[in-house]
Amino acid sequence: MTDRRTFIRQSSLLTTAGLIASAVPFAGMAQNGNNLQEKPKEENSKWLDGSRLVISVSMQFESGGQPANAESPFPQNMKKGYKDLSATTWYEYGYKEGIPRMLDNWDKLGVKITSHMVGSAVLKNPALAKEIVDRGHEAAAHGMNWATQYTMSYNDEKKFIKEGVDAIKIITGFDAIGYNANWLRRGENTLKILQELGFLYHIDDLSRDEPFIQKVNGKDFVTVPYTLRCNDIQLIEGKNFSVDQFINQVKMEFDQLYEESEKRRRQMSISFHDRIGGTPQMVQAAMELFTYMKKHQGVNFKRKDEIARMALEDKTTIRD
Amino acid sequence: MTDRRTFIRQSSLLTTAGLIASAVPFAGMAQNGNNLQEKPKEENSKWLDGSRLVISVSMQFESGGQPANAESPFPQNMKKGYKDLSATTWYEYGYKEGIPRMLDNWDKLGVKITSHMVGSAVLKNPALAKEIVDRGHEAAAHGMNWATQYTMSYNDEKKFIKEGVDAIKIITGFDAIGYNANWLRRGENTLKILQELGFLYHIDDLSRDEPFIQKVNGKDFVTVPYTLRCNDIQLIEGKNFSVDQFINQVKMEFDQLYEESEKRRRQMSISFHDRIGGTPQMVQAAMELFTYMKKHQGVNFKRKDEIARMALEDKTTIRD
Amino acid sequence: MTDRRTFIRQSSLLTTAGLIASAVPFAGMAQNGNNLQEKPKEENSKWLDGSRLVISVSMQFESGGQPANAESPFPQNMKKGYKDLSATTWYEYGYKEGIPRMLDNWDKLGVKITSHMVGSAVLKNPALAKEIVDRGHEAAAHGMNWATQYTMSYNDEKKFIKEGVDAIKIITGFDAIGYNANWLRRGENTLKILQELGFLYHIDDLSRDEPFIQKVNGKDFVTVPYTLRCNDIQLIEGKNFSVDQFINQVKMEFDQLYEESEKRRRQMSISFHDRIGGTPQMVQAAMELFTYMKKHQGVNFKRKDEIARMALEDKTTIRD
Amino acid sequence: MTDRRTFIRQSSLLTTAGLIASAVPFAGMAQNGNNLQEKPKEENSKWLDGSRLVISVSMQFESGGQPANAESPFPQNMKKGYKDLSATTWYEYGYKEGIPRMLDNWDKLGVKITSHMVGSAVLKNPALAKEIVDRGHEAAAHGMNWATQYTMSYNDEKKFIKEGVDAIKIITGFDAIGYNANWLRRGENTLKILQELGFLYHIDDLSRDEPFIQKVNGKDFVTVPYTLRCNDIQLIEGKNFSVDQFINQVKMEFDQLYEESEKRRRQMSISFHDRIGGTPQMVQAAMELFTYMKKHQGVNFKRKDEIARMALEDKTTIRD
Repeated sequence: MTDRRTFIRQSSLLTTAGLIASAVPFAGMAQNGNNLQEKPKEENSKWLDGSRLVISVSMQFESGGQPANAESPFPQNMKKGYKDLSATTWYEYGYKEGIPRMLDNWDKLGVKITSHMVGSAVLKNPALAKEIVDRGHEAAAHGMNWATQYTMSYNDEKKFIKEGVDAIKIITGFDAIGYNANWLRRGENTLKILQELGFLYHIDDLSRDEPFIQKVNGKDFVTVPYTLRCNDIQLIEGKNFSVDQFINQVKMEFDQLYEESEKRRRQMSISFHDRIGGTPQMVQAAMELFTYMKKHQGVNFKRKDEIARMALEDKTTIRD
Repeated sequence: MTDRRTFIRQSSLLTTAGLIASAVPFAGMAQNGNNLQEKPKEENSKWLDGSRLVISVSMQFESGGQPANAESPFPQNMKKGYKDLSATTWYEYGYKEGIPRMLDNWDKLGVKITSHMVGSAVLKNPALAKEIVDRGHEAAAHGMNWATQYTMSYNDEKKFIKEGVDAIKIITGFDAIGYNANWLRRGENTLKILQELGFLYHIDDLSRDEPFIQKVNGKDFVTVPYTLRCNDIQLIEGKNFSVDQFINQVKMEFDQLYEESEKRRRQMSISFHDRIGGTPQMVQAAMELFTYMKKHQGVNFKRKDEIARMALEDKTTIRD
Repeated sequence: MTDRRTFIRQSSLLTTAGLIASAVPFAGMAQNGNNLQEKPKEENSKWLDGSRLVISVSMQFESGGQPANAESPFPQNMKKGYKDLSATTWYEYGYKEGIPRMLDNWDKLGVKITSHMVGSAVLKNPALAKEIVDRGHEAAAHGMNWATQYTMSYNDEKKFIKEGVDAIKIITGFDAIGYNANWLRRGENTLKILQELGFLYHIDDLSRDEPFIQKVNGKDFVTVPYTLRCNDIQLIEGKNFSVDQFINQVKMEFDQLYEESEKRRRQMSISFHDRIGGTPQMVQAAMELFTYMKKHQGVNFKRKDEIARMALEDKTTIRD
Repeated sequence: MTDRRTFIRQSSLLTTAGLIASAVPFAGMAQNGNNLQEKPKEENSKWLDGSRLVISVSMQFESGGQPANAESPFPQNMKKGYKDLSATTWYEYGYKEGIPRMLDNWDKLGVKITSHMVGSAVLKNPALAKEIVDRGHEAAAHGMNWATQYTMSYNDEKKFIKEGVDAIKIITGFDAIGYNANWLRRGENTLKILQELGFLYHIDDLSRDEPFIQKVNGKDFVTVPYTLRCNDIQLIEGKNFSVDQFINQVKMEFDQLYEESEKRRRQMSISFHDRIGGTPQMVQAAMELFTYMKKHQGVNFKRKDEIARMALEDKTTIRD
């Protein structure tokens, strides 16, 4: 809800601009950051490598690094001072069954994905983190732990991000160039810090179905956009979808983007969290979905680092 | 729950009327505003232009005009004093991808819709607002911003509505004659104000499956009824439906109304919000649904201004 | 959760009974109201009239009688002192479209149902209430208004029930013999009061899939059991089912009960509220479901008064 | 969310270990309980008896033993001091219809299950508890009543568990060797107590899709893992699934585990609570699902006591 002050401010804007007083077109709009010439869509854009539709798959590696009594499907009514032992085993499933099962599935499908790794989870299960990278997947940074990032000071946040990416480097040998904040909630300084630390892209933006570039500290920085629409944690745990609903919805997302990709650069994003996307039923769903998608000509599964680098090279990438 | 006072009042009514004391039919009912002759349905009514079933489609243009940290699919637990940057990008999707995608879809389908435009969203993206109108759709007013309307004073509300409709006129050139209040929640003065400002209809009423007329300030004013049953924000974000559920439910709504429309004037209402109805999966759903509907003889998609004008001309329109 | 006192009490019971001290079978159980000979099911029971499976349909007539700002699908965040005008139109739909549509559907299907009528709703729309009865359906009492019944004193509750049933009698001419409390929540005195007022049955019990008899004030009183499993308000508004889910679930309920009814007396219960079950999509669902059920031999749709009377006559009806 | 202290502690760990200061592989990880050689999965393991896939079915026997005004599908807004009579009948359904119906279904399917029995429910319906055992099913302990177990002192918890298992023994004659805590929420002492009381296994762990052994008091103790993914109370009452969603999801779980079981020991877990899994629609669902599963070669339904004993005998069982 807009409060009264906002209401008055906006009214004043209108009055100043003469919107109320007369009905003549308002020449001052552009000065308010608006632009009558704004083009609402980019037509006939293409991927640099000739792909028709690019599919970007995320695999969150978070379990084992969660804080005590982290949120889970169990009732959130634990009495203070006690450990939620059963919820802990729900998270353990993520690294004991979930990630290994998904890794096998990606191999069967011949798909390389981006694994968003929480530093504390990497330290808890270093061999598994290393195996992800060894099997050809991208390691991207996802914070040192599950802390809320948008409330940190500049220095704390920089240290927090650096520790996470260092943990990944030391354990897996991979230089992460991509970032995902806890619950996508970056702060005002996050992009600057990422730029300073050498990252090339982040994913915490839902605004488009294709990558785009913005200037951060005067240099190009890529957004490889993310989505909640084909996101296991949002659909399965947040919206209480059954697995068949997940399939139906993601399939329709694909059908539309595939159609649009005939004439325009389109990216589809799907994500799987270790303890949610790694269950038998969800891996079965991924197999069904990906098999379906792969039958379509011009569909390419790409890691987000590949997407970011291709976007940087491409002169026609959208710039915000 | 009815409180005790209401209970006593109703009991007294009954006693006064002699309902308790005797079992003879109650002659005084009509004086209480009830009417034993009330006809529960209107039979064999028809649309003036010979349509069998009229489909009324809404496209809300609201994103960009939302207040800071507006409600979104993200957890509503932001700490005070911080901006919900990721939620903002969820809204941006509405005008960067959602509306343009829907506009293309309406063209492919040959359907003209009614776009309910929030004034602040129009000012934020004037070119897009204008394009909606330029492509043949109706612009209807939806308030100057997202403020709660039913708590405003008469004067504040009148100013609020007028500013919104003026913004539409100046940016798009369209004279809006229809109104939709925030969350359908009009106040006691809203209809009078709309009548005074020259509006012909509003939609904030769910009581019927066809338009009806009531006297406001002594003149005819039309209700083009709305629904929550085929409404993307209610079903997808409110009830957590998957897109296939949306399709199934809307299809059944259509099947029944089509059947009824053989003998009686029937209107079906469907609505799509920029950031929700404009996703790939939902546009795919709209394509599937509308293609299905269009195969039925006598089905006509109409803008709400057309419906309102036809209702006003028609002597047989229901009058409440 | 059982609190500590309950825990201690139950432990004591066990100790007293010798359960802890020794492992010999516990002879004292029957004195605690338990019975080792209890037969968990009644085999080979049949309906008195030779029906194989009896379907009992409820149609709640409540809209128009609801209290101010009653719960609705709209956000329950109205500011105090204002009327929820849009929610009111959601209720109006119940008597303007819902009940008339369902009445036509029951006629097409040749099905007679039980309409649970709130007294205040009957007074608001007397002609419609009368039409329900005139078209052959049963009128059952559902309280004078939407008041919480289980907190009333004996005298208040008796007056409350009587006024409701009197309103039905005066308006429709029907002598209601069945009762349904608001949200099924009867109080400790309800059955006694119903017995005193001449009711033969109530439905506020979910414990069985067939009617049963208990002694109330020393006389036989029937329970015609109800369910939440095939109940529109619970599934559509409470659980946010789509209409196709409603169909799928009710169909499976039927399939199992039909199978069981080969050897045993079984009753299936389904319910429809005016503003929920009377929408186009739900009436389409009812048509599909009932058409399916009617194809099965021995399936009979019966009003609850018929079921209650048959249960009273039948010597083999379960007695609790 | 990880709080600041946790953040600092984890950062310190990293610094101590030299993770921040240098990028050389971290030799000290193993001392922190991590292990770079950790093998994320066990390949080519098999069930000792040659089964390909083992299905473990739970049937909770809890109704009748619930505390006053226990949680139910009814609105949780009862005024203090009143009994929730209708909710009580929802629970009664569990032993009057639910368990008997499921028992017949297991017989038809030729499946033996594990019934988790609450002591107070056994005392309330002793004949039914005994019948479960007499028909060949396993009785496992589920606490003396519905008390929260993880907050109990060692002595209270030991007494609580013992009374429950004694009740089962006295009424049914069955020596329970398996345990399930209320809402799976065991405390820090639970496994030790179970070991002392002679139990061989517990199920309150979601971390794997096969049984595993850990040392408790120096002896082998088995976990027969449980799941929320194919669990009626979680899916039907918690997530508001319709019965067809339950079927679809469980079927996909089976398909994946069956595929994996070709090369590796896999266990699938499904559970049904008396008042939820025992409804007509859910029993129909179980019949459809189990019939489907039984068509696959090498699928064996086993009681959890059989699974636990087989795991103890098997040298290749995972040890945590």
